[in-house]
Amino acid sequence: MDCIFCKIVAGELPCYQIYEDNNFLAFLDIQPISKGHTLIIPKKHYHTFLETPVEILTQMTPVIHKIGQALLKATQADGLNFGLNNGSAAGQIIMHTHFHIIPRFNNDGLHTWPSIECSEKEFKKITEDIKNNL
Amino acid sequence: MDCIFCKIVAGELPCYQIYEDNNFLAFLDIQPISKGHTLIIPKKHYHTFLETPVEILTQMTPVIHKIGQALLKATQADGLNFGLNNGSAAGQIIMHTHFHIIPRFNNDGLHTWPSIECSEKEFKKITEDIKNNL
Repeated sequence: MDCIFCKIVAGELPCYQIYEDNNFLAFLDIQPISKGHTLIIPKKHYHTFLETPVEILTQMTPVIHKIGQALLKATQADGLNFGLNNGSAAGQIIMHTHFHIIPRFNNDGLHTWPSIECSEKEFKKITEDIKNNL
Repeated sequence: MDCIFCKIVAGELPCYQIYEDNNFLAFLDIQPISKGHTLIIPKKHYHTFLETPVEILTQMTPVIHKIGQALLKATQADGLNFGLNNGSAAGQIIMHTHFHIIPRFNNDGLHTWPSIECSEKEFKKITEDIKNNL
């Protein structure tokens, strides 16, 4: 398996480890957006969030919550972004499911992406399209 | 309760509704970053992710997964960003816990935030600080 995160799980590559249990591992992102930027992964390899079994994701949720609380205390951050990029078009670089937690500070200069214009007709159309795929 | 999302839950304000069950509601963001940008909220009011009981978040996870799958199909997107902003410093505008799912397309011009420099000493220090708060 030529996956960097699988190698970290196997102990074949080092990491700044934050947390470990039977199923999950958390460590610092080595290209952090801010100090304390942490990644949480399932030890088992799944390419993307959508390809990860729901049971695994459900078990992961309390781990994310717990690490978020610790991160806020440790960094004295004013806020946190929790994020997951599904697919390379969404910015996923390592194709092994991973959640980001990014400490945020007032006036840290990071900006939310701009919004687009959307007509009522377009909103209604996309609403129906999504519902039809549920 | 002067919360826009609570008013949507109560039916006092309209929304482009995607999904509803006993505990959760999903609807389109009316200031979308891309077409199909969807919000998923617990019906009960909690200010932030970290203040939301873990049991609620755990129940929410399969809903987020299910809606993500439908969004990908409906929009024919190349990827998805799943995100949650905890606190106004992190970009949270409505103080009622909500997950974003944002459809992404190849070369859509949205860029990941830049990374910062961090020394090995700083990585080690922050790792210990976070672990000490777990």
